[in-house]
Amino acid sequence: MARPKNDTFLRALLREPVDYTPVWLMRQAGRYLPEYCETRRRAGSFLNLCKNPQLACEVTLQPLARYELDAAILFSDILTVPDAMGLGLYFAEGEGPKFERPLRDEWEIRDLTAPDPYQHLRYVMDAVAEIRRALDNSVPLIGFSGSPWTLACYMVEGGSSDDYRTVKTMLYDRPDLMHRILDVTAQSVTSYLNAQIESGAQAVMIFDSWGGALSHAAYKEFSLAYMQRIVAGLKREHDGERVPCIVFTKGGGQWIESIADIGCDAIGLDWTTDLGEARRKVGDRVALQGNFDPMALFASPEAVAAEARRVLDNYGTGSGHVFNLGHGINQFTPPENVEVLVDTVHSHSRRGSARS
Amino acid sequence: MARPKNDTFLRALLREPVDYTPVWLMRQAGRYLPEYCETRRRAGSFLNLCKNPQLACEVTLQPLARYELDAAILFSDILTVPDAMGLGLYFAEGEGPKFERPLRDEWEIRDLTAPDPYQHLRYVMDAVAEIRRALDNSVPLIGFSGSPWTLACYMVEGGSSDDYRTVKTMLYDRPDLMHRILDVTAQSVTSYLNAQIESGAQAVMIFDSWGGALSHAAYKEFSLAYMQRIVAGLKREHDGERVPCIVFTKGGGQWIESIADIGCDAIGLDWTTDLGEARRKVGDRVALQGNFDPMALFASPEAVAAEARRVLDNYGTGSGHVFNLGHGINQFTPPENVEVLVDTVHSHSRRGSARS
Repeated sequence: MARPKNDTFLRALLREPVDYTPVWLMRQAGRYLPEYCETRRRAGSFLNLCKNPQLACEVTLQPLARYELDAAILFSDILTVPDAMGLGLYFAEGEGPKFERPLRDEWEIRDLTAPDPYQHLRYVMDAVAEIRRALDNSVPLIGFSGSPWTLACYMVEGGSSDDYRTVKTMLYDRPDLMHRILDVTAQSVTSYLNAQIESGAQAVMIFDSWGGALSHAAYKEFSLAYMQRIVAGLKREHDGERVPCIVFTKGGGQWIESIADIGCDAIGLDWTTDLGEARRKVGDRVALQGNFDPMALFASPEAVAAEARRVLDNYGTGSGHVFNLGHGINQFTPPENVEVLVDTVHSHSRRGSARS
Repeated sequence: MARPKNDTFLRALLREPVDYTPVWLMRQAGRYLPEYCETRRRAGSFLNLCKNPQLACEVTLQPLARYELDAAILFSDILTVPDAMGLGLYFAEGEGPKFERPLRDEWEIRDLTAPDPYQHLRYVMDAVAEIRRALDNSVPLIGFSGSPWTLACYMVEGGSSDDYRTVKTMLYDRPDLMHRILDVTAQSVTSYLNAQIESGAQAVMIFDSWGGALSHAAYKEFSLAYMQRIVAGLKREHDGERVPCIVFTKGGGQWIESIADIGCDAIGLDWTTDLGEARRKVGDRVALQGNFDPMALFASPEAVAAEARRVLDNYGTGSGHVFNLGHGINQFTPPENVEVLVDTVHSHSRRGSARS
């Protein structure tokens, strides 16, 4: 299996020479696109959309039909893994994800086991294969998972939280139980990502959305250590091609030197981090992905373009930069501004920033 | 006017020798204390409590009666300033602060003027004077204000926000209007803090609660630059004593070297920052305040004490550390754990960590 026709994204992740800076957007298949809302309506619910490989493929491709994006990302949800572990994922209207059976009791935690991804998450592997067929080797497909800590937050809290009180009380009070959850979850994520790679994902990303809520000491012990274990257990080559791995801790800008040490190929950054400074800190150990403020997409086209150029110039010339937002795209984003963003990234970086 | 009998807090801020590490807690007069809830009930509402100098004094002193805290902090709210600017602050039950007239129109922004603190915020100055009398020079009193950026977030959004969409759209789209709001707000905060100092505040703190929501570039232009202007305009001496100034940007751990350059005496840190590393970065330019995770107060007394020792050891020996939480204390915190925390800070630091 050869690399896709447009392999700029993979080249940038591996810090090979590129002609321009590649760009994709977190949550690029999402509610800001009317065609996504239409498919979701047909699916009946968000979860049905995730669990139907044909529909998941359809929405994965929608943003690529509109914009010159350099990668596709599997349409799915990070909570499919705890759902496969038996916690009972559901979405209450307007309330975000919830679990019917959050993890609270010691015996439930002791009983937790890693699901077989080919059995309990078959629909994800089918979606990956379906999307690869539909992409026809045009651009690479990114697979993904939540980080163990981020999944554990949802599993213990039973849903979203703004202070992580329940999960942090467990962390400080019963670190043994917390480690048990993280251990099983790290095993689950490793086999889940490897199954995605075997099914056709050409790069993988670990979303540590809530790592930034931890103290620096707890981050290393309860989030980073488990991501390191996952990275060590990943199939890094498939079909003769290297499969790069991106680690993204939102709010983790203070810890990038430690993240660069865990063996990943690239670090995702939110908009609070100075890309140029980050690049000096990590040297040639990893590539960097980010870090446009998603709220800047609400400004005028001129302001969107100016901010995109600022981010590109902040990284500087040479390969090793994948342009992205610093967080998922907001559902109210004007779709026409996304086109301005993508086109500006390509044109401005062709003029110099991507080439050394 | 001499320094208070217990001047350990002021000494640590000025990096003078201390016998132990001083401690106070953000929002130490708050809902986790039953006596606070009782006074608030008598006041009728949170805003009545803020606006009544006798009751504000009463709740300010409550945590000092329970715990061996090394400083008192004025009981008030950061939104008193925009309220004095005419935006109409109110608290909707269970919804947090709101403004009747959020800033949206260009003409309203052009018309904005800085309030006279002795006229429109007289009740705050009266509370400061009242608290100073009641403290009888036992421990120092801290005055405070929100940062211009943080106040502007509330003023433009009209209340709390989780994505700052309205205010960031203005920032990216109409930076001229944003700067106009920040300029008037910085003038207001400067005269407000100076009035608190003249009324008896012995140290002041600027709370930049939402600075961490900005990109690194926007932070410097729209938050830090205005705090620098305030610090430059503060009365740094009163009654023959130096009045130290603390700047706290929540989520600002990546920017501490820039914050140390604005002329403040100390930097507040949330729990995500490694105190020892921060100390190496800022050298002897500023003291550091923080940075215990408030959620760790929900663990067992043993775990609370262990985490407190970890924070103290993370800073290391020598003066220049004021122990605090990395954010306001949570309303559900068990009050008995606060005693464990305060006592552990004192006893552990007397054993060595505060002395070089």
